[in-house]
Amino acid sequence: MTSLLQNINDEVLRTYIFWVAVLVVKMLAMSLLTGRQRFRKKVFANPEDLPPAKKGATPKFDDPDVERVRRAHRNDLENILPFFTVGLLYMLTNPEPFIAINLFRAVAVARILHTIVYAVVVIPQPARGLSWGVAYAATAYMAVKTALFFL
Amino acid sequence: MTSLLQNINDEVLRTYIFWVAVLVVKMLAMSLLTGRQRFRKKVFANPEDLPPAKKGATPKFDDPDVERVRRAHRNDLENILPFFTVGLLYMLTNPEPFIAINLFRAVAVARILHTIVYAVVVIPQPARGLSWGVAYAATAYMAVKTALFFL
Amino acid sequence: MTSLLQNINDEVLRTYIFWVAVLVVKMLAMSLLTGRQRFRKKVFANPEDLPPAKKGATPKFDDPDVERVRRAHRNDLENILPFFTVGLLYMLTNPEPFIAINLFRAVAVARILHTIVYAVVVIPQPARGLSWGVAYAATAYMAVKTALFFL
Repeated sequence: MTSLLQNINDEVLRTYIFWVAVLVVKMLAMSLLTGRQRFRKKVFANPEDLPPAKKGATPKFDDPDVERVRRAHRNDLENILPFFTVGLLYMLTNPEPFIAINLFRAVAVARILHTIVYAVVVIPQPARGLSWGVAYAATAYMAVKTALFFL
Repeated sequence: MTSLLQNINDEVLRTYIFWVAVLVVKMLAMSLLTGRQRFRKKVFANPEDLPPAKKGATPKFDDPDVERVRRAHRNDLENILPFFTVGLLYMLTNPEPFIAINLFRAVAVARILHTIVYAVVVIPQPARGLSWGVAYAATAYMAVKTALFFL
Repeated sequence: MTSLLQNINDEVLRTYIFWVAVLVVKMLAMSLLTGRQRFRKKVFANPEDLPPAKKGATPKFDDPDVERVRRAHRNDLENILPFFTVGLLYMLTNPEPFIAINLFRAVAVARILHTIVYAVVVIPQPARGLSWGVAYAATAYMAVKTALFFL
């Protein structure tokens, strides 16, 4: 058996699990945000989703409000999902608990803010750029640290 | 070393691994489904993919059959990938094995049905909505349970 | 506690972690590649991202250079993220270390090449098809092996 698992600090692991679970809830909420816009604007992507009253209507793919939420959701896929994996592996590098715990918190809080300023209450730049950048930098740091540790 | 790993029940873990591996096969199959539609309709997204006979032709991004499979695939990314992570972490909350095992089965079967009614044999709503909803609810339950456990 | 974790070979795990971390760095780099094209071509997806000089301009979603990088990025989400999960689970099947280590290397190198020939220096087919296919086949092999082991 590998002894690497002994590098995992209990408090760091608990912080990781809590924030990852919160981020999963946040990501799942994107589907509800998309659905809310679809029903509000009556904009659907599939013929079978169109309401009966709109028979003869065609799917629509360029509604700005629907597409905005979908871009925010895709940005989650690009940034949060890699964090889930690399955050887990980073714990095996025996990091300083204080640093690891605050990196996890930073990613989670930044990504929640990113969703708010992108898809809930649109706030002018650099609000979105900054929230994206904090989570991006923290994830990149963990990835580079982990790659170098196991080089 | 963390003692959290002792919460993992062997049978629950085996069920998780089996269904996750099945879902990975299912997700990989989406690429073949997309490719089948692309070659059937001769619709490609990149100039370098166009068949020689179609030199002078341009890429096309609005074929309904190709885009339907791509939407199903994207829906997998949004729903299945977060499940992979949160299903793993949920096992650390020491869940009742009967519940955990059936949650994993529910997500997997629902997502396989979702693909079938969305991208293989299109079936009128609420077939897709229901299959999506079962997996969504099960994943959300695991995420909330996990977040509360490690609060 | 589950005894499955004892199936994990230390050297295989280290190889997995290293290449996964490298692939996370590679995936994060896609955002920079997209940003480079967006600023070079002045093509943005959100009204709030448009440079002041372009007030009155509208977002644009069909720039071929921007969309090419975005397709490469989406292809990463479809192929690399499932590998992260199934690669981890595959290690629990007690695979021959030589095979497992080289499967991980093959996926990683193939996906790096895929990005290069898709989004950095566009090379005619079958360059992209081959690099995609190597990682796809290796991931599918691991998924099938894992599913059968835990059947």
